[in-house]
Amino acid sequence: MFGGFPASADPYAMSLFQPSDSEYESRIRANFARQQVMQLMGASLRRVEPGAVSIALPYRADLTQQDGYIHAGMITTIADSACGYAAYTLMPADSGVLSVEFKVNLLRPAAGEEFVAEAEVIKTGRTLTVTRCDVYSHAAGEIKLIATMLATMIRR
Amino acid sequence: MFGGFPASADPYAMSLFQPSDSEYESRIRANFARQQVMQLMGASLRRVEPGAVSIALPYRADLTQQDGYIHAGMITTIADSACGYAAYTLMPADSGVLSVEFKVNLLRPAAGEEFVAEAEVIKTGRTLTVTRCDVYSHAAGEIKLIATMLATMIRR
Amino acid sequence: MFGGFPASADPYAMSLFQPSDSEYESRIRANFARQQVMQLMGASLRRVEPGAVSIALPYRADLTQQDGYIHAGMITTIADSACGYAAYTLMPADSGVLSVEFKVNLLRPAAGEEFVAEAEVIKTGRTLTVTRCDVYSHAAGEIKLIATMLATMIRR
Amino acid sequence: MFGGFPASADPYAMSLFQPSDSEYESRIRANFARQQVMQLMGASLRRVEPGAVSIALPYRADLTQQDGYIHAGMITTIADSACGYAAYTLMPADSGVLSVEFKVNLLRPAAGEEFVAEAEVIKTGRTLTVTRCDVYSHAAGEIKLIATMLATMIRR
Repeated sequence: MFGGFPASADPYAMSLFQPSDSEYESRIRANFARQQVMQLMGASLRRVEPGAVSIALPYRADLTQQDGYIHAGMITTIADSACGYAAYTLMPADSGVLSVEFKVNLLRPAAGEEFVAEAEVIKTGRTLTVTRCDVYSHAAGEIKLIATMLATMIRR
Repeated sequence: MFGGFPASADPYAMSLFQPSDSEYESRIRANFARQQVMQLMGASLRRVEPGAVSIALPYRADLTQQDGYIHAGMITTIADSACGYAAYTLMPADSGVLSVEFKVNLLRPAAGEEFVAEAEVIKTGRTLTVTRCDVYSHAAGEIKLIATMLATMIRR
Repeated sequence: MFGGFPASADPYAMSLFQPSDSEYESRIRANFARQQVMQLMGASLRRVEPGAVSIALPYRADLTQQDGYIHAGMITTIADSACGYAAYTLMPADSGVLSVEFKVNLLRPAAGEEFVAEAEVIKTGRTLTVTRCDVYSHAAGEIKLIATMLATMIRR
Repeated sequence: MFGGFPASADPYAMSLFQPSDSEYESRIRANFARQQVMQLMGASLRRVEPGAVSIALPYRADLTQQDGYIHAGMITTIADSACGYAAYTLMPADSGVLSVEFKVNLLRPAAGEEFVAEAEVIKTGRTLTVTRCDVYSHAAGEIKLIATMLATMIRR
């Protein structure tokens, strides 16, 4: 905002997040494979980086609400998992992660061919991690921001 | 809270909500049947009353997250639909309803045989309706509050 | 909702909250006296019960926004403190309490002679407590719900 | 996130927000002067740009909670006003603006010499505008993100 910090001086820049578990990516990919609902929905894990994770969901008619758009709950499901995993990249190998709470603003109808939830960590703490997620629709080469989430995750 | 109002004097009591469309229940049941994702998940519409709607979701392994609990996004999906339909009971016959935003607190892991989202309208306005939803788990005859949502719906 | 539980069977009934610190009320009244901003605003602590606290704020022109209503931030301030103290009634004597996050829906303009924030605990945990707060305006003998908060508090 | 769009291609870049009222800045400065609570708190309006507004609040002991930090409600007050005015920059000259709802995460204790709320518009619509606000503390030359808000504003 307002140009804000130069990236190099921003104490919240992603590059400053150092995972304590160097095997974080394989840990998260294995965990994602255990989320059976992701298979039901057809969602897949994309990028896994320190403090940042993205999940993609192709359009499918059986995920829709009354007007043919993807149901807000499905968009929330990939956003919540992306936030949880973004937080989880920075947690120790022997920990678990659970959602405490989240808020979602639905900005545009979820129309398009594919939906990508891009989550990043805003703040880490001993027990709580705060994350943000933007969800984009992809349709005919056009990308639109359709939803944004602000979420609190807890380490277990 | 604190005993609050006697029910008869409470201006927010449900009984004061008068649907402008006397056919609200059939309108909502027809609309619910068009939410294809509800069939995918196995969710069903329960009560439909002026300003209050409930939706039930039986446990299924393919709705779970990494620990075998129902994914927070699935709980959110039934809560969001219950809130939307609670608002929709009070809207005119020719209107539509969309979620503007919602916030969910996950209070306990979603373990149990069945999950019921019970939504009610807090405040109606010309365009916006504010709703609240509590989600309960049912397991071996025991009922627990597992999540609560506060949501804003818009008339279209 | 829907009549819900009989009060005696409701596992979330306030009466089931047993403070571990029998001196909770004096602890909270002393803590409130240290919140200097409450004096600046003219807010006062009303009821202090296990899991439930209320705070009152009389109308004052210097608390208003551009239209002469009490600023949403002032309403939030008493709601946040009421939620924090409701949670704090159930915490041990040597603990502290901080707000993790909250969401507020502003339901009606904050017009009236006095505003009362009534908070109650929904769920307690080892570290986190989830609370809800309704804020009512009082004007010429009429009481209106003007805002509602859903908040997460942490024990320190 | 993830580098995201090049700024020039990002359809959500601030530069794409074109105020319909060329006198937006003076309109907002006049409106801010009518928010009496800002004077009570000692808050001042900083930048006013299309879709982006910042408000500053110097530390004062009479704005504090029980531990000597600025009360979360005061931080929320400047964040809410910054969000409202960010939305208002893009609204017509004859309109008004009100908060529908907001959610705040408190990331660090509000310690420091000054607190700056930096709000920006995420999405504009006919009636609703969604905004985001980060609040930074300034202390001994060090800047920290202490809170973040996601808010919905309505045009009146």
